[in-house]
Amino acid sequence: MKKAIYRQHGNAAEVIEIIDAEPQALEPGQSRVKILRSPINPSDIVQIAGQYGIQPDMPAAAGMEGIGEVVEVNGDGHEIGTLVLLADPPGAWASERVFPTEVLVPVPRADIDQLAMLTVNPATAYLLLTEYVDLKEGDWIIQSAANSAVGRYVTQLAKSRGINVASVVRRETAIPDVKDAGCDAAFVDGPDLAERVEAELDKAPVLAIDAVAGDAFGRLIATLAHGGTAVSYGGMSGEPLIIPDGNIIFNNVSVRGFWLVNWFTNAGPDEIKRVYGELTELVLSGQLNAPIDKIFTLDQITDALAHTVAGGRSGKVLLAPNGI
Amino acid sequence: MKKAIYRQHGNAAEVIEIIDAEPQALEPGQSRVKILRSPINPSDIVQIAGQYGIQPDMPAAAGMEGIGEVVEVNGDGHEIGTLVLLADPPGAWASERVFPTEVLVPVPRADIDQLAMLTVNPATAYLLLTEYVDLKEGDWIIQSAANSAVGRYVTQLAKSRGINVASVVRRETAIPDVKDAGCDAAFVDGPDLAERVEAELDKAPVLAIDAVAGDAFGRLIATLAHGGTAVSYGGMSGEPLIIPDGNIIFNNVSVRGFWLVNWFTNAGPDEIKRVYGELTELVLSGQLNAPIDKIFTLDQITDALAHTVAGGRSGKVLLAPNGI
Repeated sequence: MKKAIYRQHGNAAEVIEIIDAEPQALEPGQSRVKILRSPINPSDIVQIAGQYGIQPDMPAAAGMEGIGEVVEVNGDGHEIGTLVLLADPPGAWASERVFPTEVLVPVPRADIDQLAMLTVNPATAYLLLTEYVDLKEGDWIIQSAANSAVGRYVTQLAKSRGINVASVVRRETAIPDVKDAGCDAAFVDGPDLAERVEAELDKAPVLAIDAVAGDAFGRLIATLAHGGTAVSYGGMSGEPLIIPDGNIIFNNVSVRGFWLVNWFTNAGPDEIKRVYGELTELVLSGQLNAPIDKIFTLDQITDALAHTVAGGRSGKVLLAPNGI
Repeated sequence: MKKAIYRQHGNAAEVIEIIDAEPQALEPGQSRVKILRSPINPSDIVQIAGQYGIQPDMPAAAGMEGIGEVVEVNGDGHEIGTLVLLADPPGAWASERVFPTEVLVPVPRADIDQLAMLTVNPATAYLLLTEYVDLKEGDWIIQSAANSAVGRYVTQLAKSRGINVASVVRRETAIPDVKDAGCDAAFVDGPDLAERVEAELDKAPVLAIDAVAGDAFGRLIATLAHGGTAVSYGGMSGEPLIIPDGNIIFNNVSVRGFWLVNWFTNAGPDEIKRVYGELTELVLSGQLNAPIDKIFTLDQITDALAHTVAGGRSGKVLLAPNGI
């Protein structure tokens, strides 16, 4: 079997290597899964760089989500050939992996590219929309990085609930993509963002969702209604959050953070099952989807990582460890 | 009568002037109050500078709190000579003022310097400690600007409830003052603040209270326990809040803002009466107190304002519009 590991933190394209390893023997209660697809997410890049909330032992496995097919079971388990979501990250960037049978979530045979991306980004979008503000039909939300996978899922989920979406992007050329995703208003970020948002929307947003940080976070906060909430789930700019204190003090805006790992730690198994059940239905029906930019084999992983961080992609980069 | 006004926003010592005005005739339901003491608070300076959440019409009256004595009443009201807190700001920097009788809060004859400072800072400290985190005996809080009036009140109120206080100041010479105020641990701010706090406290603080903003806010946040809350109530550094996003995302820290005006707007009259009743008792018993640096007459207001912003004071600056 082949798997991606890194021996030190750094630029993913430089520190990731593919090694050959002996297949691990199955213990009772374990299943072997042949991995079919695994996406490269921003959180993978951040984790490999050593800027994540968990520091792994070295050498470390990589790849936080994916989809595969059960090829061997010790004890009770799913039928051979069952399609399953990989739910014990990291380690999805491998040709196969042994999992505790109980963590594998069976899914119907459908679009494996879309299903491979279900665990991280759709769940993030779902929880950003539901955990912080009790949104009502007709409310506005505003989000940065609106052309990211999470941003697109946020738009799709919000629209399915009658919530209005204002999308903010960093370049004019991304406007058609976010409009195509279904947002109700689209803005290029800039110093006068709050004035333009106020002029265009019928009421101020009550929730801001941000993955950029830096001054962009403060500009997003300045658009919020009195008492609004801003949730940070990423720091793509590499800057800290920068917030004019008047928005927090006078306008009574709350700032929160979202990390999927914290949710997994605190949510009970029933809650996790409920959320993923709902998301699976939405992916199977096509209501939730994200564009794919390119699929690489495991041997091409260095190119895949370089392509991911280079920017200007039109969608997600996936690995196909057992062939495209 | 004499009163302080400003015709444009700016440096308080430069834009404030004292004018002579005709005493206003009383309408039914109004009382005339001879003003005895009114403090100069940071929020006055910020409001005169035009950096506050409310923009007054010009020319504007100044002075947000104080204490006086009823000298004339039209209709039912307090007895002549009753000591009252001024509760309809701004306009306390004047030799007298007409108020709706119903807003005047009678207080016993006691230390008028301490009572004059009751409305803004003790209430701010009380609400910072009670509105955001359900603090339990033995919990730690951490605060910046710990040698400010609010900081001192926070320490006094927290200690009376069995809560441990870590105080952060910007210079070594302020350490004796905050220890004298009763805090349990004291630190000079610096890049390694989180490490020093972790080494000295038996557990991480669950609430951070900040009036400095800038990088100092981020350093304070870095000391918090997982899931802790940081509340900003001022921006003495003139910088925005700067927060490493990892603390928000991975450590699930919430950021909130406090503005007394928002509380007055949302709290019902019973709640306001309850809080001020409790605070009045604490001031009368001496449990809540703040040092006075110097008392000025109204005619000396320019000197008083310059002295206030010069720094290095050992306590509050008060105005005595009818003589010291």
